[in-house]
Amino acid sequence: MTLDRTDPEGAIREAAKRCSNWGRWGAEDVRGTMNFLTEEKRREGAALVRRGVSFSLSQRFDGDGPQKGWRRRTNPVHTMLDTGTDAAAGVQGFPHGLGGADDVIAMPLQCSTQWDGLGHIFDHGAAWNGRPAGEVVTSLGDTVTGIETVADVIAGRGVLLDVGRVHGGDGDLPDGFAVTEQHLTETAHAHGVAIGRGDIVLVRTGQLTRARRGVAAGHGWGDYAGGPAPGLSFTTAEWLHRTEIAAIATDTWGFEVRPNEFDRAFQPLHQVAIPHIGLFLGELWDLDALAADCAADGVFEFWLTAAPLPVTGAVGAPVNPIAVK
Amino acid sequence: MTLDRTDPEGAIREAAKRCSNWGRWGAEDVRGTMNFLTEEKRREGAALVRRGVSFSLSQRFDGDGPQKGWRRRTNPVHTMLDTGTDAAAGVQGFPHGLGGADDVIAMPLQCSTQWDGLGHIFDHGAAWNGRPAGEVVTSLGDTVTGIETVADVIAGRGVLLDVGRVHGGDGDLPDGFAVTEQHLTETAHAHGVAIGRGDIVLVRTGQLTRARRGVAAGHGWGDYAGGPAPGLSFTTAEWLHRTEIAAIATDTWGFEVRPNEFDRAFQPLHQVAIPHIGLFLGELWDLDALAADCAADGVFEFWLTAAPLPVTGAVGAPVNPIAVK
Amino acid sequence: MTLDRTDPEGAIREAAKRCSNWGRWGAEDVRGTMNFLTEEKRREGAALVRRGVSFSLSQRFDGDGPQKGWRRRTNPVHTMLDTGTDAAAGVQGFPHGLGGADDVIAMPLQCSTQWDGLGHIFDHGAAWNGRPAGEVVTSLGDTVTGIETVADVIAGRGVLLDVGRVHGGDGDLPDGFAVTEQHLTETAHAHGVAIGRGDIVLVRTGQLTRARRGVAAGHGWGDYAGGPAPGLSFTTAEWLHRTEIAAIATDTWGFEVRPNEFDRAFQPLHQVAIPHIGLFLGELWDLDALAADCAADGVFEFWLTAAPLPVTGAVGAPVNPIAVK
Amino acid sequence: MTLDRTDPEGAIREAAKRCSNWGRWGAEDVRGTMNFLTEEKRREGAALVRRGVSFSLSQRFDGDGPQKGWRRRTNPVHTMLDTGTDAAAGVQGFPHGLGGADDVIAMPLQCSTQWDGLGHIFDHGAAWNGRPAGEVVTSLGDTVTGIETVADVIAGRGVLLDVGRVHGGDGDLPDGFAVTEQHLTETAHAHGVAIGRGDIVLVRTGQLTRARRGVAAGHGWGDYAGGPAPGLSFTTAEWLHRTEIAAIATDTWGFEVRPNEFDRAFQPLHQVAIPHIGLFLGELWDLDALAADCAADGVFEFWLTAAPLPVTGAVGAPVNPIAVK
Repeated sequence: MTLDRTDPEGAIREAAKRCSNWGRWGAEDVRGTMNFLTEEKRREGAALVRRGVSFSLSQRFDGDGPQKGWRRRTNPVHTMLDTGTDAAAGVQGFPHGLGGADDVIAMPLQCSTQWDGLGHIFDHGAAWNGRPAGEVVTSLGDTVTGIETVADVIAGRGVLLDVGRVHGGDGDLPDGFAVTEQHLTETAHAHGVAIGRGDIVLVRTGQLTRARRGVAAGHGWGDYAGGPAPGLSFTTAEWLHRTEIAAIATDTWGFEVRPNEFDRAFQPLHQVAIPHIGLFLGELWDLDALAADCAADGVFEFWLTAAPLPVTGAVGAPVNPIAVK
Repeated sequence: MTLDRTDPEGAIREAAKRCSNWGRWGAEDVRGTMNFLTEEKRREGAALVRRGVSFSLSQRFDGDGPQKGWRRRTNPVHTMLDTGTDAAAGVQGFPHGLGGADDVIAMPLQCSTQWDGLGHIFDHGAAWNGRPAGEVVTSLGDTVTGIETVADVIAGRGVLLDVGRVHGGDGDLPDGFAVTEQHLTETAHAHGVAIGRGDIVLVRTGQLTRARRGVAAGHGWGDYAGGPAPGLSFTTAEWLHRTEIAAIATDTWGFEVRPNEFDRAFQPLHQVAIPHIGLFLGELWDLDALAADCAADGVFEFWLTAAPLPVTGAVGAPVNPIAVK
Repeated sequence: MTLDRTDPEGAIREAAKRCSNWGRWGAEDVRGTMNFLTEEKRREGAALVRRGVSFSLSQRFDGDGPQKGWRRRTNPVHTMLDTGTDAAAGVQGFPHGLGGADDVIAMPLQCSTQWDGLGHIFDHGAAWNGRPAGEVVTSLGDTVTGIETVADVIAGRGVLLDVGRVHGGDGDLPDGFAVTEQHLTETAHAHGVAIGRGDIVLVRTGQLTRARRGVAAGHGWGDYAGGPAPGLSFTTAEWLHRTEIAAIATDTWGFEVRPNEFDRAFQPLHQVAIPHIGLFLGELWDLDALAADCAADGVFEFWLTAAPLPVTGAVGAPVNPIAVK
Repeated sequence: MTLDRTDPEGAIREAAKRCSNWGRWGAEDVRGTMNFLTEEKRREGAALVRRGVSFSLSQRFDGDGPQKGWRRRTNPVHTMLDTGTDAAAGVQGFPHGLGGADDVIAMPLQCSTQWDGLGHIFDHGAAWNGRPAGEVVTSLGDTVTGIETVADVIAGRGVLLDVGRVHGGDGDLPDGFAVTEQHLTETAHAHGVAIGRGDIVLVRTGQLTRARRGVAAGHGWGDYAGGPAPGLSFTTAEWLHRTEIAAIATDTWGFEVRPNEFDRAFQPLHQVAIPHIGLFLGELWDLDALAADCAADGVFEFWLTAAPLPVTGAVGAPVNPIAVK
């Protein structure tokens, strides 16, 4: 598939038409591709636990995180309601030597490792399943497809496609690198894994590894959140649809390649994937420890639980995904 | 074991001495009883997935939740950075028909379904493993045992003890009902399950079921968050220690029975369990759907992933636990 | 003027037509009735400072405040970034004995003493001066009439109308008491003050006094925020318009009488006063100390500074108004 | 006075001893130098209103403000609870065409124009009036000298010392410029004003003017919040004490010159001024419009109201100061 760089709107329209899942699970559906994640899939996933080793795929929710204000996204602000210093100073008023600490957080729901919910992106005023965006997400939040509607479902077979390791020079892809279907299938082939219905696919580009090197070197996060990045090509829309995967996540802030592949566009693959395919996208995942283990033992599939924090009406939600091999 | 209602401080001191795990995993340890949750335990847990059915054990993080201000804990405040109404009105400035929604949350980390971290409670100025509370948890948070230190570990064998169903009249225990070791072992016997090292034990009292009936009847949450409750008896401290469980969670706000079993006391079992045993306590869990399923199929053990949101330095953390049978 | 309780929409339409200030200060105007508050008015106000005594007319911004969740309004959440206990414990890392404390707040902008901005209320999709509501206030805030546009203007002559003291039995009006033009003019007459162009009028109903008695008696705030209240009658719309006052504030949460005076309505006087008159309304002001002083010395006019916190794009803003006599 | 750059602790100790106001207003005092701001002073201040022109001395509380994370201070996060787009879309559920907008803020209390409260800074564990810091400011906030204790007092005579205009080349002082007593008195002399007991002194360095030029030129705020700056010399401690001023404010983030005048130190003048003198310091004030007017008409004194938002227990508070000439 080749792209006409000058016609993003036409390309989006065509891809949306070819990849639409509207109505596939009925007019009332709120789970989109999560419908592919069946009990059978969970049995298949659980059977992948052989060693019992577990990996958190979440970055830290940290005040020194990568956010720099893009779309008013900030890093979490974590403050204390009670502290150990207060307890030690004896000012808390509890009896018999009891002391306590408590805390509070304020943060954008997509400031760190997260799932995009189905109410996160719209195409020409249409949300998932063809609903009017203005009736789905108001100031009260997403009253139809809020992230709580998938609170119990995201546990199944996970597959890592370490495209950075397979196609990157130093283990990571450069910014602006568009990951195509060919890269994905070659990587799966190299790993000896198949991708199919109901899978949760994790695509490692290596950008986070690179960003961390920058932090360690004292350069800060740079534009890791909101800037140029490797990522999925717009041309993968049909692969995302055809494979009938349940969800896909990357180690970048925006899932797709940045800058996008049109002369003027903003996240065109989101515009197809979320409202039309009904696909759940994960962003800012930390795949490094898992990827190192997979490279070491040659096993790129595992049990994955990635249950979003069920904030009522949220259009995205933080998550601490756990892979077990 | 009988309690002298007039001497909580003596009882706490004795229990702390008998149940201490200080130094058991070395002076540097930050994981406490999570050390019991081994890879072998995860293999055992994963093998419990037979049907592939999954349950979220999380309440909704919702502005209409149960918090009423106790210890300055409020319900979450969820607001939008962008909405579908804005997208539909064409005021967002994205090209080619793209629209988006984004959101923000502010909340106490223990306002809904959560884990207490090891920095949550102190005994006479001592935190887990004997560290000075004032050096562990300052205004910067828990710089030693922050919840992020167990980000990857809490996945293993879960066991439900539905004490409410076994010992409660209508399926739930009354407020002030102290769940003793005898209740726990009788319930385990009734369910046909054994409890042992590395298990994650879920104790259902039924109080949440009762509270929800109140909400449904228009009476609101009442004192569900911060008020009287059924819960673990102080006398279970030695059972909690002896069984070598990795963690334990309940469907109440405070884990232990309220009012507590001394004439004047506040959460004395916490004071033993967290700083001395190094035990992870879960609170405000929603066990109802899982319990109904267990009652129906007679299987009270399952694969459980309960990965806390890894907020750096948090003394507690929200979690969406997922049980799979 | 008599009201047809069955036709609020008609009454609103008629009042809006009679009281409209649209276009009065040009199509670009963003200050509404603040245009009446001239430099001459400030000179007049400053001349009222005779004794030099000052009064804060603000309630405390406090976690134990009156908010109970109406329209998702909560009390402020105030947490510390650094504390004196930390400083005393020597854990802050500053040199030479320096210690510091710092803090953070999260709150609705209208949770306590506040001004309604001109973007707070709309009538049939129209904002102040006839602008489309959807173009004025989006998720980005009020991009036209944000409260920062009146950051420098609200200082002038203040007049207290202590209707509670003049018309209330015990110094306060009962809930549901509709303050009419006659009550206002009788009160002004009793106080020996005239109301005119550019004045900032403060109407004390005494409800806050009553609510505080409830708090002191251990009954909590009750429905002080969001419940029944004395307040301005819908029929005062023309007085509000004709007098050409710059602003008006009360000691209640909602300015107008609650329940409203129609069989089914919600804050109909707001719907006329803000978008059509362009009038600034103050709510939750604490007029008690000032009122006691005015009753004592018989002087009900004073210099008043009531500068809103200039939050960019805010539709309302907290304020600590200062009266000086 | 000359400074020994190698002995900040000695210099602080000596200055603290010479400038201490401990006990001056009794052991219970919570207002420090605000005790100098008397009713007489307010009469004097009000008499300065000649033209009736008013100036806001507050920067905007804005998400694009200068904060960059220093001491975990962020810019305000302003989000909407209800919007005009929602109102226009008819999704709010109010009767008769009513629509509304509401908003929420989360911010550090010292992120923009603010007063330091007396609980903001400690010297060797001592707070204002000699109280132990750990008993004054805990996680619950400042329970003794919280900013609400001066809610009603800060209105009086303001005097501008435009040191930037008098001593700066282009109207602003360079970073690292230490403003000495001589600069202050020369500036007062040039302006034809005297400084005395109970005055509120505003010192303009011009750094904000410079920072804004940077923003306008697309360079962002740079290090305006937390970086190098012109400001008061440590040697002014005695002048601050001797003049018996009520308060002093600058257009910089940190009041004193940065880097400080010792080889290793952090805000040593704060350490004398707040806990020992009991002086209120204002920071991040916007003095530019007022300064231009004063330069034009030659009048550098005015009526000033600078009432902090009375957040219970706050160690600092936002303020919108209003000067009237």
